[in-house]
Amino acid sequence: MMHQKHREKLFSLFDDGQQGAVFIQGSEILYRNETDYEYPFRQESNFWYLTGVNEPECALILDLKTEEYHLFVPKRDAQFAVWHGYVKSQEAWQEQYKPDHLHYTNEILTVMNEIKPDKVYCLNDLDAELIEDLDRGFEADIETLQDALTYCRVIKTDEELEYMRKSAKVNNLAHTEVMKAIKPGMYEYELKALFTKIQYEHGLQQDAYNGIFAGGKNGAILHYVENTSQIKDGVLFLLDAGHEYQGYASDITRTYPANGKFTDLQAGVYDAVLNALNSTIEKVETGVKMEDLHMQAARTMMEGLKDVGIVKGSVDDMMENDIFALFFPHGLGHFLGLDTHDVGGYPKGVERIDRPGIKFLRVRRDLQPGMVITIEPGVYFIPALLIPALEDDMQSKFLNADKITKMYEFGGIRIEDNIVVTDEGYENLTDVPKERDEIEKLISG
Amino acid sequence: MMHQKHREKLFSLFDDGQQGAVFIQGSEILYRNETDYEYPFRQESNFWYLTGVNEPECALILDLKTEEYHLFVPKRDAQFAVWHGYVKSQEAWQEQYKPDHLHYTNEILTVMNEIKPDKVYCLNDLDAELIEDLDRGFEADIETLQDALTYCRVIKTDEELEYMRKSAKVNNLAHTEVMKAIKPGMYEYELKALFTKIQYEHGLQQDAYNGIFAGGKNGAILHYVENTSQIKDGVLFLLDAGHEYQGYASDITRTYPANGKFTDLQAGVYDAVLNALNSTIEKVETGVKMEDLHMQAARTMMEGLKDVGIVKGSVDDMMENDIFALFFPHGLGHFLGLDTHDVGGYPKGVERIDRPGIKFLRVRRDLQPGMVITIEPGVYFIPALLIPALEDDMQSKFLNADKITKMYEFGGIRIEDNIVVTDEGYENLTDVPKERDEIEKLISG
Repeated sequence: MMHQKHREKLFSLFDDGQQGAVFIQGSEILYRNETDYEYPFRQESNFWYLTGVNEPECALILDLKTEEYHLFVPKRDAQFAVWHGYVKSQEAWQEQYKPDHLHYTNEILTVMNEIKPDKVYCLNDLDAELIEDLDRGFEADIETLQDALTYCRVIKTDEELEYMRKSAKVNNLAHTEVMKAIKPGMYEYELKALFTKIQYEHGLQQDAYNGIFAGGKNGAILHYVENTSQIKDGVLFLLDAGHEYQGYASDITRTYPANGKFTDLQAGVYDAVLNALNSTIEKVETGVKMEDLHMQAARTMMEGLKDVGIVKGSVDDMMENDIFALFFPHGLGHFLGLDTHDVGGYPKGVERIDRPGIKFLRVRRDLQPGMVITIEPGVYFIPALLIPALEDDMQSKFLNADKITKMYEFGGIRIEDNIVVTDEGYENLTDVPKERDEIEKLISG
Repeated sequence: MMHQKHREKLFSLFDDGQQGAVFIQGSEILYRNETDYEYPFRQESNFWYLTGVNEPECALILDLKTEEYHLFVPKRDAQFAVWHGYVKSQEAWQEQYKPDHLHYTNEILTVMNEIKPDKVYCLNDLDAELIEDLDRGFEADIETLQDALTYCRVIKTDEELEYMRKSAKVNNLAHTEVMKAIKPGMYEYELKALFTKIQYEHGLQQDAYNGIFAGGKNGAILHYVENTSQIKDGVLFLLDAGHEYQGYASDITRTYPANGKFTDLQAGVYDAVLNALNSTIEKVETGVKMEDLHMQAARTMMEGLKDVGIVKGSVDDMMENDIFALFFPHGLGHFLGLDTHDVGGYPKGVERIDRPGIKFLRVRRDLQPGMVITIEPGVYFIPALLIPALEDDMQSKFLNADKITKMYEFGGIRIEDNIVVTDEGYENLTDVPKERDEIEKLISG
């Protein structure tokens, strides 16, 4: 049982035999603007990680002393059965999720009183307040648990990696099929239609994030989610989208010419980004730091942009003066898992976490086997960044104004793969054409 | 300008020349479970109704004395331009939405101090608190505005009806295409895939509600949204889903045999529901009450179920003893508009609203020209309702236990059209096959 392993991993981080408890409430159904429009239910990721329960209104207690798992489920009335078909029996809950003890959610206080924890570890104020409202004698701690779960979740188990491979498989297919289907004149939402259809057809009904389907200059809008423009002949199309499989996200980006043929300028910029991607992936291994990969990718892209005459001068000087950030204003990548921007990205300081009752080390940015990351270098022509830079004495001397001022409609190029850090180096989960000749063959085919 | 008309409608409900103001904050972007997963932005419906603005972090003030419209928009920094491409200029906001006065959101207090309202009409506590926090001198009223906007929104303008016809057109197509595509052995999510694809292809990226794609017995789960089961040969498939066009919802249900051929029993129950739908629609005209239509539909279905031998005895007695509710446990329909369950459904009492400062009458359930409603009779075989009924002396005497106990896997049949009440009677926005022979021809074709 995958989720039992996850609980064991969490238990192992706490001092043996301490009189503590973990308490987490799962998500409820979310409604829009005081209406009855219901967002599709999606469990809170830490709760899902520890229980596998993707149903609303549940809660859990982990007894740190006995390592027992208490699952609390909602008590439903007859009216619920009319709308939801049936009321799930306690036997069915037990059978499906196998907690050590199953209770209704109105029994949280009773169970807490039996455990009598010195401290109750919670994820947030809301849960802490619930516990302290039940009995002022309970002492809630909202600092430790988030770190502990981050420590667990940042290194994937074999079972989690299997889920991420399954997620990748469908997502690879969806990206490839859209690449085959694109034609100039299509609207961005038509490609979203095809992408989503393939995901749904394979049962992946939950998107991992609000996808970007961006033709031409929209590709330079990092957070473009309108997806309403027509894709003109001659422009690039940038697709950054993914769906979840059993909660596990995929996050792939590809950029390609709508008409199947890169222009020389597009090819030059594309190769700068692709070289950055490929050479960075090659460096992935245990102990490498994401910051170093970021800087390497940035340098590779500056070299490529210099080759096509968009920037000029010494690449060392460009790096020193942050010129790269004018074209590459976001991070190289992030952890990936039950959340698209998965936990572990922002470790707390460099010092060892040494709180009473917990014994794990800080989460480090250094790559470790079992981590899953995205690598997603990009080059964008963003007028809001380039126009001021061209007016800046220091920055403008690196910029070829003649070329750049003609590229405000160019958009951007991002290429993103999903990478597992392994003992041997890495495993690339993403298998969607990214070499220029492959892409041209697929689109014109 | 459609939204200007809406504002004029609202102004007309308030006493002339009163020193009051309406204040509404638009929606913000909603995130999932303290992560950066962003739900697609969808404006709060009243704000959309009055402004046409479907962008986050805006606010409005309507000056009831001068009838001037103040739109407040967020002030963005340079970082915003990197992620969103550009910062929309004040000229662009003005051009697009044409407010009488345009301001940044930090200018709400300044404008309020110029208007000096005796009363500020708000939709909810949140907005009222914001106003009262700005200056304790302001008096907020959260009772009147909701009623006033309901009064406006429940009768659609010609422009709104045009939008609803456009919404219906794409939704009709999506339903019809799924009907053509169904085959036994498909998974429910495959049909959701096709349905969603057609909506997206036509630019309808926002669903109007969480759709139901239910094969076989899942059709008896009124709120079935999992959409994960395989659809077996011989069962019925129930599809209840819709997308919005420019905020305006469509809400259509069709039920049909996965293999294209109704069995005799399926046909008998289907005709009971279809007769209820068609005969109810024929009755739609000014002055009719939804309650009366509901009871008529229920009676028609009971007559149909008696014809096929599922219930027995006097239909009058069945109606008197609420036997119909065992098979038809939901309402006949609801208002439809910017929300799927649109405002106007639950008028406050029967008495005339006679608050100081406002002069409109109560919203009545009696149908009036310009109202848009759904009519959606259904017959379901819900074990959670039928098993206790069969054990109840009063209820069981109307039930044919032999037949009913064999129908716990039957599922349900619902057929739903969207109807505009007109001066002449009604206009049916829904054009998806519903006669049995049409359906059989379409599926086997």
